[in-house]
Amino acid sequence: MNFASDNAYGADPQILAALTRVSDGAAASYGEDEITKSVAARMAKIFEKNVAVFPVVTGTAANSLALATLCPPHGAIFCHGESHIAVDECAAPEFFTHGAKLVHLHGGGAKLSPQSVADALPGFMRGVHSAKPSVISITQATELGTVYTPDEIAALANFAHDNGMRLHMDGARFANALVHLGCSAADMTWKAGVDALSFGATKNGALCAEAVVFFAPKMAGDFEYRRKKSGHLISKMRFIAAQLDAYLSDDLWLTNAARANALAKTLGDGIAKLAGATLAQPVQSNAVFAYLPDAMVARLRKAGAQFYDWEPARNGHTLVRLVVSFVTPERAVSQFLETARQ
Amino acid sequence: MNFASDNAYGADPQILAALTRVSDGAAASYGEDEITKSVAARMAKIFEKNVAVFPVVTGTAANSLALATLCPPHGAIFCHGESHIAVDECAAPEFFTHGAKLVHLHGGGAKLSPQSVADALPGFMRGVHSAKPSVISITQATELGTVYTPDEIAALANFAHDNGMRLHMDGARFANALVHLGCSAADMTWKAGVDALSFGATKNGALCAEAVVFFAPKMAGDFEYRRKKSGHLISKMRFIAAQLDAYLSDDLWLTNAARANALAKTLGDGIAKLAGATLAQPVQSNAVFAYLPDAMVARLRKAGAQFYDWEPARNGHTLVRLVVSFVTPERAVSQFLETARQ
Amino acid sequence: MNFASDNAYGADPQILAALTRVSDGAAASYGEDEITKSVAARMAKIFEKNVAVFPVVTGTAANSLALATLCPPHGAIFCHGESHIAVDECAAPEFFTHGAKLVHLHGGGAKLSPQSVADALPGFMRGVHSAKPSVISITQATELGTVYTPDEIAALANFAHDNGMRLHMDGARFANALVHLGCSAADMTWKAGVDALSFGATKNGALCAEAVVFFAPKMAGDFEYRRKKSGHLISKMRFIAAQLDAYLSDDLWLTNAARANALAKTLGDGIAKLAGATLAQPVQSNAVFAYLPDAMVARLRKAGAQFYDWEPARNGHTLVRLVVSFVTPERAVSQFLETARQ
Amino acid sequence: MNFASDNAYGADPQILAALTRVSDGAAASYGEDEITKSVAARMAKIFEKNVAVFPVVTGTAANSLALATLCPPHGAIFCHGESHIAVDECAAPEFFTHGAKLVHLHGGGAKLSPQSVADALPGFMRGVHSAKPSVISITQATELGTVYTPDEIAALANFAHDNGMRLHMDGARFANALVHLGCSAADMTWKAGVDALSFGATKNGALCAEAVVFFAPKMAGDFEYRRKKSGHLISKMRFIAAQLDAYLSDDLWLTNAARANALAKTLGDGIAKLAGATLAQPVQSNAVFAYLPDAMVARLRKAGAQFYDWEPARNGHTLVRLVVSFVTPERAVSQFLETARQ
Repeated sequence: MNFASDNAYGADPQILAALTRVSDGAAASYGEDEITKSVAARMAKIFEKNVAVFPVVTGTAANSLALATLCPPHGAIFCHGESHIAVDECAAPEFFTHGAKLVHLHGGGAKLSPQSVADALPGFMRGVHSAKPSVISITQATELGTVYTPDEIAALANFAHDNGMRLHMDGARFANALVHLGCSAADMTWKAGVDALSFGATKNGALCAEAVVFFAPKMAGDFEYRRKKSGHLISKMRFIAAQLDAYLSDDLWLTNAARANALAKTLGDGIAKLAGATLAQPVQSNAVFAYLPDAMVARLRKAGAQFYDWEPARNGHTLVRLVVSFVTPERAVSQFLETARQ
Repeated sequence: MNFASDNAYGADPQILAALTRVSDGAAASYGEDEITKSVAARMAKIFEKNVAVFPVVTGTAANSLALATLCPPHGAIFCHGESHIAVDECAAPEFFTHGAKLVHLHGGGAKLSPQSVADALPGFMRGVHSAKPSVISITQATELGTVYTPDEIAALANFAHDNGMRLHMDGARFANALVHLGCSAADMTWKAGVDALSFGATKNGALCAEAVVFFAPKMAGDFEYRRKKSGHLISKMRFIAAQLDAYLSDDLWLTNAARANALAKTLGDGIAKLAGATLAQPVQSNAVFAYLPDAMVARLRKAGAQFYDWEPARNGHTLVRLVVSFVTPERAVSQFLETARQ
Repeated sequence: MNFASDNAYGADPQILAALTRVSDGAAASYGEDEITKSVAARMAKIFEKNVAVFPVVTGTAANSLALATLCPPHGAIFCHGESHIAVDECAAPEFFTHGAKLVHLHGGGAKLSPQSVADALPGFMRGVHSAKPSVISITQATELGTVYTPDEIAALANFAHDNGMRLHMDGARFANALVHLGCSAADMTWKAGVDALSFGATKNGALCAEAVVFFAPKMAGDFEYRRKKSGHLISKMRFIAAQLDAYLSDDLWLTNAARANALAKTLGDGIAKLAGATLAQPVQSNAVFAYLPDAMVARLRKAGAQFYDWEPARNGHTLVRLVVSFVTPERAVSQFLETARQ
Repeated sequence: MNFASDNAYGADPQILAALTRVSDGAAASYGEDEITKSVAARMAKIFEKNVAVFPVVTGTAANSLALATLCPPHGAIFCHGESHIAVDECAAPEFFTHGAKLVHLHGGGAKLSPQSVADALPGFMRGVHSAKPSVISITQATELGTVYTPDEIAALANFAHDNGMRLHMDGARFANALVHLGCSAADMTWKAGVDALSFGATKNGALCAEAVVFFAPKMAGDFEYRRKKSGHLISKMRFIAAQLDAYLSDDLWLTNAARANALAKTLGDGIAKLAGATLAQPVQSNAVFAYLPDAMVARLRKAGAQFYDWEPARNGHTLVRLVVSFVTPERAVSQFLETARQ
């Protein structure tokens, strides 16, 4: 019953198999190999567009390198106060951007709206005394498991572009959001105005593989220098590329996400029916946020369930986060619900 | 006939197998897992000492994070002008240290001596106008394939410590050097005075796994914050740890290095006998540096041999670098020598 | 009627005279001169303690250099959301600290309390995923003109020290606060637990002179390297030191602050009696924050009064900031009140 | 007999007088005042061109901010190994550029030539493994007191531009070089291809005033943000601007430089005639570099002469640097020569 995080689980067998498959013989290093090219071709197909694609090994690196490319050292990045870049990356974006300012905004469901940015903007329009508005960064699916619609994304992109900013999307759970929406990857990104994407694969089946995608390849600028300078250019790159290549083959990424989403839905539906329990957010991806009675929380933990308290207990209830991965056993869900019900 | 680099080859089958072996089920993420602990235990045994061990995925990250831990932003790092940190890492150490100064020194066989540092030191003893002498960094085996003896290392360590500095060793090819010397890992490092080590595994069989080792664990300071802040804390860490674990099991690391060294020796011996060819450096690890006649170079390239020119052609000869990996086919060596001889 | 800022006014004649006085002949450069030593001696007397003193030319440099000395690149600095370091310095602290996180807190009168920091702290106690709590920074007098009592400072200092943090005070208007409290400089700083102080002189009579003061000289560490490396070591330092020397002579700093505070009091008292106007904060230093009817604001501006709107107009009133300097003419105050009354 | 540095002397009386003159009354802060505008107008006239001008207080800040504007974090800056940015600024350029690489080159008279850069360039044309060639930086007059001719500058500028780089000039002693050449300021800068200039005034009469000049104003980019973010935007800017304004008025800058150069010439001519002494460099600005017999050096120091040894004593002679300022007494020169002659 491990619902602590989707990164608590291992790797997809098809991705592991790909590693062995590409290992034989010599190949060009540092991303000049054929498999890295194949990944770029797959991405172009998925996004229906020529895009610039750069594999990296962590989401923090993907986000930080993307932001450093879009934002000058004296820039401001508007993000949600609960976003991963704001609170879970040890101020990595500040390091990679050389001191940019992350402006923490608020909004229900961990979502930003044009209004939330507009409200903060005047404080950054006073010349050099404040950082220069440069980027809006959103997470899809969000840190509360909710999903922006293409229209919501487009509204933010328009606001960003109208104000001389760019739109970055942290897609650590990109596939989960896409499966939920049922739209195309293009619709959820560049057609809605997204400029740069951190495309996640690790949480949904890879060992350590993400990619930064720029929809206008020129916007990538000197990205490759930044990646190398931060120690994120892998010498035997084929092993990172192979993970992405397998992930994008045969719809593996969508299949895995669909399974995780469905199981999360089952878990959420089950919780909604528990006496004293309430869902805190609609279940739109692979995470369930729910208020559970403290006695239920204690009983679950005693039975071995692993999950995070998202907020301290209050009034006899605790807000918990339950994350389901592509490979979480169905039995973990049923066992969790049974234990909760007792 | 690929002698371009040891990172042109794939991964050791035993290491690939370990990835599959550790993938099942849930585990703590971010390095709190059992396999990461096992790596630490293996390192303690190898070094005969309790050490602080931090897995990362690239040598550039290992070197830069180690240096940033040892050197303040206003510090000076003395290194050889041909060292990897000086010329092959896109000034990554300058980024991670927040602007420290790398002082490029000279010395035969890409080696530093206490005298080479002593000659440069007065320029850095003028108070705040120059960077503060903080670290001496050496590469073992060096970028020219030569190997420091424990005595040479101890002399540098003593000089560093006498002058308020610390000694860092870039061990991208640590195993190759160790096998050549035939001494213990302890003798080649902390017993000789090394403070921090970048322990390489990628070039000798891993997919993407290195480790930073501090021999006085307290010296690691806030290393873990720096690793996270630079995007180098892998969420599914067990997959990096598993590579190191397999690498250090059953003497795999030493066996692989011994094979590469021996094959390089065969290649070097063969070249030394070629008419018009000369070894530029003694073959002490898995690289051969030789002056070859330009016609021979052209003939080899035409036959498909891959290797780097280390210096531009001069007087009809070119200095070339030939690197042999743990898995370079023996036939590549014999074929190279045959082609060269024609 | 210029109430825009205390930096809108020029320099004190006694300070200007000092510049000419010290200009003759040759002297050691980079702070090795006698006048710089005299400043250190005066500071030791004022603070009743041996302190480390470093003159710089701007408050932003003073704050940023102090914070970079106290806080590692991966540290968190807790400050008020309206503080100068948070919103008026273009993220300079983030640059000098190499990417530390400024955590914006709230509290009435632009003041922090131990509780406000305690509420935020749990989010930073999750290991390397969040920045490491390192510094609490307060402003004395605050950006809303209010003044912390020594007891309030001591409570924050105790909380900081109990949690492994240090307390920094931005004293851009240090003299104004001190005159208000009527206590000793020691009582307001190190006796209450302040670790480092940005001591302001520019707003209260100097041309461009501030000083960073560490109450435990060892805590200054490599401050001098940081100052040089950021271009803030003035070659003809005697001209900065001379400003501070004259400022601290004959109680000039206290006399100037007392005059500004008294005039601000007169202005505040006058405003409190105006129909439709309300003071937003008690007048405790040299700034007046008041809600004025929009018609009154318009009339004042038309008559040439200069001041900033602190918040956009709402419900027919605007929150304005009026700053009085050591040399603002009394007539400016009386004329302002007369115009407001009409 | 103080020949230690031109920054050992005070300020020009006309510049001191200007400070008092501009101090009265209120003025816009942060460079929005009339005097700052006047400086820009004077610069445009001197350079016969609309230029972007930004006052700062130190040469290190001027150089570092100019370089950070011209060079990305992953860029390489080619400079002479004896240049101020290379060895006298505590790696400040590395800090402001966020980790760029300063490549130390050699050349007689502390001068670079296109060939010296061309020889180093191939090492930086290997993609992301090395820093990206971005800037050539020269010093005028050089650290050895020599002066580039406009033709020499043009050759470097052409080489820079042909290779995608820009040319920066550190003009800490700009006036001294200009007076020596007798050409126009335009001829010595943008007409020869200089892109950005650190224009020095402090060494030649100001208290603390330099200016960064971009000859194509658009190239300044976000300079103002960088200046603010590094704490170098002075709030009462009129006091820095007034120094530059007076410096550029009535040919004060040229008169001062001419006097210093002439006196240095007298000193150099006198030394050339001393038995056992030799000039190490032609005297082209306000510095004299000479090999003096060690006994003479000892005798001069005993008599109170202050100057720096530029190299350690060798073969009975020491290379010394003697710098003459705009206000060094003539008597100091005659006394020095008399003492040397005894």
